[in-house]
Amino acid sequence: MKVLIAIDSFKGSLSSIESGKAISLGIKNVYEEAEIVTIPIADGGEGTVEALVQATEGKYVETEVVGPLGKPVQAVYGILGNGTAAVIEVAAACGLPLVPVSERNPYYTTTYGVGQLILDAIEKGCRDFIVGLGGSATNDAGAGMLQALGYSFLDDEKKEIGYGGLELQKIQSIVLSKVHPELKNCTFTIASDVNNPLAGENGAAYIFGPQKGATPDMVQVLDRGLAHFAQVTLAQLSKDIQNIPGAGAAGGLGAAFAGFLHAEIHSGIDLLFAAVGIEAKMDGVDFVITGEGKLDGQTSMGKAPLGVAQLASRFQIPVIALAGSVTKEASVLNEKGITSFFSITNGPMPLEAAMDHANTFENLRITTEQLFRMIKAVKG
Amino acid sequence: MKVLIAIDSFKGSLSSIESGKAISLGIKNVYEEAEIVTIPIADGGEGTVEALVQATEGKYVETEVVGPLGKPVQAVYGILGNGTAAVIEVAAACGLPLVPVSERNPYYTTTYGVGQLILDAIEKGCRDFIVGLGGSATNDAGAGMLQALGYSFLDDEKKEIGYGGLELQKIQSIVLSKVHPELKNCTFTIASDVNNPLAGENGAAYIFGPQKGATPDMVQVLDRGLAHFAQVTLAQLSKDIQNIPGAGAAGGLGAAFAGFLHAEIHSGIDLLFAAVGIEAKMDGVDFVITGEGKLDGQTSMGKAPLGVAQLASRFQIPVIALAGSVTKEASVLNEKGITSFFSITNGPMPLEAAMDHANTFENLRITTEQLFRMIKAVKG
Repeated sequence: MKVLIAIDSFKGSLSSIESGKAISLGIKNVYEEAEIVTIPIADGGEGTVEALVQATEGKYVETEVVGPLGKPVQAVYGILGNGTAAVIEVAAACGLPLVPVSERNPYYTTTYGVGQLILDAIEKGCRDFIVGLGGSATNDAGAGMLQALGYSFLDDEKKEIGYGGLELQKIQSIVLSKVHPELKNCTFTIASDVNNPLAGENGAAYIFGPQKGATPDMVQVLDRGLAHFAQVTLAQLSKDIQNIPGAGAAGGLGAAFAGFLHAEIHSGIDLLFAAVGIEAKMDGVDFVITGEGKLDGQTSMGKAPLGVAQLASRFQIPVIALAGSVTKEASVLNEKGITSFFSITNGPMPLEAAMDHANTFENLRITTEQLFRMIKAVKG
Repeated sequence: MKVLIAIDSFKGSLSSIESGKAISLGIKNVYEEAEIVTIPIADGGEGTVEALVQATEGKYVETEVVGPLGKPVQAVYGILGNGTAAVIEVAAACGLPLVPVSERNPYYTTTYGVGQLILDAIEKGCRDFIVGLGGSATNDAGAGMLQALGYSFLDDEKKEIGYGGLELQKIQSIVLSKVHPELKNCTFTIASDVNNPLAGENGAAYIFGPQKGATPDMVQVLDRGLAHFAQVTLAQLSKDIQNIPGAGAAGGLGAAFAGFLHAEIHSGIDLLFAAVGIEAKMDGVDFVITGEGKLDGQTSMGKAPLGVAQLASRFQIPVIALAGSVTKEASVLNEKGITSFFSITNGPMPLEAAMDHANTFENLRITTEQLFRMIKAVKG
């Protein structure tokens, strides 16, 4: 019995890794000798570093960087098992959780610390970067990050601009003379499922500004700053960063990565699968187990479980999806590679009881155990 | 694929037969050609007639009898497929649901209609009787039923006593001259899971009187009546009906059946299994599906699902138990013949939503379908 577990987090209850543990216990209670491969799932947001470090037997690095408010914060990133690739969640250096709600203001928040994480990893020998763009508190088009890496953005007095989205509109010239020399040897792969352009109605400021603390008036100012940044970049570097799909991710960090650092933007789950070599891990697998907190129709289903299922079905491996709740629309999942789906909820109960950490763990373990008892009975 | 479905009702949501239909649909969506045998489950209470009529391809008979309050009621009983056995739920003729709450008073309620149902069935050619004792509104020791069958209970003025538990203490003599002559050719098998004696602290009046509307004072009067009835019966007929286990079932109907009609008392589920020939039906079965509204530890688990499971495990057939809710204690069921158990609840929800008829039906169908999709994947 060989089982591949690639399950998303049960948001608010269990992380992807904890879910994998519960399932693993359930299997082992039936098939004591089962070979179990667990691939933590993350889509570029929270958990991406943990997932990749775990899957590649890499390590964590903690370092002090400039936080979103310009004050020092401790940030963690990962170095994969090969020692030459780093995985960074930008939220570690400029994420919303680092900013008290009352101080959230994308006029002033900076991505400077993201650049510092990159520098730290370069110093430690990393040349390949996987970057998750979820959850930033910023709208500075990645200018802060680029400054940390040696890019200069000068105002009309030839002075370096300050931190934050409000500064973008002051940029008159971009100076490349001090860009870190190793960057040209680096590759950047961005995990992002956002396709927004940099500026405009569908851009970073309009779509994501409000949730970062921007008022409607601020959104307009921020949007003009992003557009101005794109114009200057186009004029001086002949690079169109405005219309790259995903340029608007993370307050424009997508534009900085794609336009300045030649990053490729991929969906988070594709990137994860490639990084962990999931196809090779399907070899000889009898069952794949996936799932997430809530399984509904294809539209709102996370890309991770569906991606896992589609891959497994290519290899004709049965896929079991487990979820806290399964809506009536879930039956379309049977056509998308999911052999069977089950709710782990063991009876009527309020949401908060269902989301209780210990309950979720135990229900996941028991449901898995009961399923594998049945599998064993059928296999004989 | 051959599946035996023997599932209890989901009380308040789905009958045993409806549950069987939902499961059957779920299986057929996967194994279109599956052979499905459904045995409706009932333990002697509500659903016993339906279960046996259905399982033996018998028929229903409706007739007017004297109801518990002495007024006419329409009552239904069943004649099994063999045409010579009748199945009667005493509640059809003297049940609590026939008496408005404000009129519940075991001083006056009678089992007379039960005797009339027996007479009707005798006239229709039945000589074997299966009788479910659940849910009576009476405490007359079955005297009413016996009167309908020709027994006379005379008071000190040689007058026939009236209906109800209050009359029992008047009995001075029992006259057998007018007892229906065919009764001696009849067999009676009682389905009852109650072991109480007729009178006394653990007797019918003390244990079941209050739920039938008796006050504490009435309980004492009723109990004296039962004890008196037993004394007269012992003195005049040399039959000890006081201490027969189950004599106290259905307000003493157990005593009347066992003492006067030579009935054997069996547990409801054993009786059902024997009547439907469940062992023969296990032949060639690949899976047995059982369950009930709530699956918990062995103690409060219904005898039906556990009985089904134990029988199936003797034949080494995997048993899947499905329930609305599954408590943590349910894991002991794995040692009792249940291969795997699952809750059909598809997410956090309040009890009333979980018990909604349509929801329960659909969740039962979907859970079954998902399980059989997995079984099919495993079988290859």
